[in-house]
Amino acid sequence: MSKAVDALRRQFPIFASRPAPFHYLDNAATGQICRPAADALIHYETAARANVKRGVYRLADEASVAFHKARAEMAAYLGAERPEEVIFTSGTTLALNIAAHALAPRLHEGDEILLSELEHHSNIVPWQLVAQQKGAKVRAIPVTDEGRLDYDALERVVTDRTRIVAVSHCSNVTGAVTDVGRIKEAASAVGALLVVDGAQRAPHGPLDVRALGCDLYACSGHKMFAATGCGVLWGRRELLDELPPFLGGGEMIRQVSIERSTFAPPPHRFEAGTPPIGAALAMGAAAAWLSTLDWGALTEREMALTGRLLDGLSAIDGVRIQGPRGLQGRAGVVSFDVEDVHAHDVCQMLDADGVCLRGGHHCAQPLMDRFGLAATTRASIALYNDEADIDALLTGLEKTIARLR
Amino acid sequence: MSKAVDALRRQFPIFASRPAPFHYLDNAATGQICRPAADALIHYETAARANVKRGVYRLADEASVAFHKARAEMAAYLGAERPEEVIFTSGTTLALNIAAHALAPRLHEGDEILLSELEHHSNIVPWQLVAQQKGAKVRAIPVTDEGRLDYDALERVVTDRTRIVAVSHCSNVTGAVTDVGRIKEAASAVGALLVVDGAQRAPHGPLDVRALGCDLYACSGHKMFAATGCGVLWGRRELLDELPPFLGGGEMIRQVSIERSTFAPPPHRFEAGTPPIGAALAMGAAAAWLSTLDWGALTEREMALTGRLLDGLSAIDGVRIQGPRGLQGRAGVVSFDVEDVHAHDVCQMLDADGVCLRGGHHCAQPLMDRFGLAATTRASIALYNDEADIDALLTGLEKTIARLR
Repeated sequence: MSKAVDALRRQFPIFASRPAPFHYLDNAATGQICRPAADALIHYETAARANVKRGVYRLADEASVAFHKARAEMAAYLGAERPEEVIFTSGTTLALNIAAHALAPRLHEGDEILLSELEHHSNIVPWQLVAQQKGAKVRAIPVTDEGRLDYDALERVVTDRTRIVAVSHCSNVTGAVTDVGRIKEAASAVGALLVVDGAQRAPHGPLDVRALGCDLYACSGHKMFAATGCGVLWGRRELLDELPPFLGGGEMIRQVSIERSTFAPPPHRFEAGTPPIGAALAMGAAAAWLSTLDWGALTEREMALTGRLLDGLSAIDGVRIQGPRGLQGRAGVVSFDVEDVHAHDVCQMLDADGVCLRGGHHCAQPLMDRFGLAATTRASIALYNDEADIDALLTGLEKTIARLR
Repeated sequence: MSKAVDALRRQFPIFASRPAPFHYLDNAATGQICRPAADALIHYETAARANVKRGVYRLADEASVAFHKARAEMAAYLGAERPEEVIFTSGTTLALNIAAHALAPRLHEGDEILLSELEHHSNIVPWQLVAQQKGAKVRAIPVTDEGRLDYDALERVVTDRTRIVAVSHCSNVTGAVTDVGRIKEAASAVGALLVVDGAQRAPHGPLDVRALGCDLYACSGHKMFAATGCGVLWGRRELLDELPPFLGGGEMIRQVSIERSTFAPPPHRFEAGTPPIGAALAMGAAAAWLSTLDWGALTEREMALTGRLLDGLSAIDGVRIQGPRGLQGRAGVVSFDVEDVHAHDVCQMLDADGVCLRGGHHCAQPLMDRFGLAATTRASIALYNDEADIDALLTGLEKTIARLR
């Protein structure tokens, strides 16, 4: 292992405790927690716990200050204009549900919501539920054989009834990175709002949501090396100001009577009840720590590993990569299928060598239908992976194929 | 401190780390985490993390098994018939929002949802949002001067249009414990469903939701000595089977195409996306540990402390208890106001003596309106409190009143 990766891994407690071999390549499902996030979580939950926002004693005041600091850290990581644009949620899924339901009043019978064929179910089902309520229609940008959005089809699928476009920043199956600029251009041309599911992009370095040009952006803490149970919905302040609440409860109100309520300004309007405080502090700490890293070098390394994996897979007979074969416009999420071998068998066999992979439809059934597959095997790379992880996968896969075919 | 309390406190890490004096009496806002819950959270997040439900490698399989165990532990704590009746949510607030939206299709124009005047905003606002959508009406069981539900009014407020009755098991302001049996009788008489907000009851020992007779029951992990970011909605299996999903996303589906989706059976239908895994394991561990305690003795002690507090407050000139003065049908949540002194000032002054109290409307504005108050000061007792906590409050309060009036 290189010294650089070795130093990085020391920031992730799991590598000190899991017995070798441990080649964790399921980062698209969940990342491992980094030390700064774990420290923030553990300190709050075990030594500094009080509820936030309304406490008047020091312990509660300290918790509120820490919670606001986490919001500011996430705002800085995302490139938000101000902390108030950052809404803490329980994860990307709730963030996208808030987005769908808060935008629902803007939809009318016959309006269209445009997704893509490669979306995760969390960026499909909430829109379907809202579309049903409003008599709107869900359409999809088609996907090429290489598992990318078919930008040439935009002219056809974006219509004057398109009110919302919701796409992932990076596919959790093919690793294709969306050209958000092109989508934005097409959406803007018809006055549609742009929602981006950033769950797979957020773990790979600081963002600039303003430059990206989207209106709402969602991501998850556990995928960016913080704790499970927390995510963020970022929104342009001017837009958030106009949106109605989705969940009702404490802390999101201005005034409540039995008959009616009025609501607090953002972000509180969208944060009903006690937030996932410990996990939010962890998310802020992870974001602050990630911001100190050299992402030029890290991205280069992640892409070198991705290249090594793509090359290795291409050289194995019977393995088909489901996604871009080259490094252009893709991230380190790599799906493949093996002729005559089920993805679950691949995963189970490789587990014996300590290689953690995911096999299944990856919550992206429409994409599986597009590919004519029930499942793929997926490896997903994070900043702490190295050549040994990739080589263990490739060696194990060759062995598995020799045994099972 | 008695030996029994001393032994209990050793199960709560915060008491070893906070400098004395530390009299934590804000348990209605959040409890402190117990060692078994902290251990489960920390072990999962730092040494055993993988996503649940779909993993095929050992680490993921272990996480899924642990998650199911937590569900079974919560089912046992609540007295559920089977683990599948337990839905993990991000907290009581989301649990009640799921309840409201899943029951919404049963509401028609002019139907009535019956709450009470003492509900927490989390058991008011979701119902208002749903009522608005369906043209239904929100009504409330009135509250007596003593801060209890006025059961004599039931005959008047329960009508043949009442479809849902939603009440708290224990008030987070007055400490009044609801006679759920009487409410159930009135609800059943008109065929209404009964939803119970158990956030304040769940920390005080194992429950029997079936015997209670409700249809849905909500509670929070952080209030029952687990981590922030997790809660539970329990539902009768036969009812859950019939209810539509609320949040859309991964893991709650059976089949997804771009046009439409079909949904998984409960509890998965109601658990979209990656759950708050670490906090759920903590909630299970807390429930399992709480189940080993002698609740006869603990309740006796909690009530003795409540009596000591009520007696002490009654003896201070200018202090008015807002809630039942006696111990009958109440729990250890005690609100009071001090003539000519604002609740925030009381809390701040007492903080100097290490006494943690909450001052404000406690997310129960309709009750404050009923009492004609803007705010109360609230002390809330948990299993680790002792006489010294109560006496510090009483001594500090007398000192504060002498200074401020």
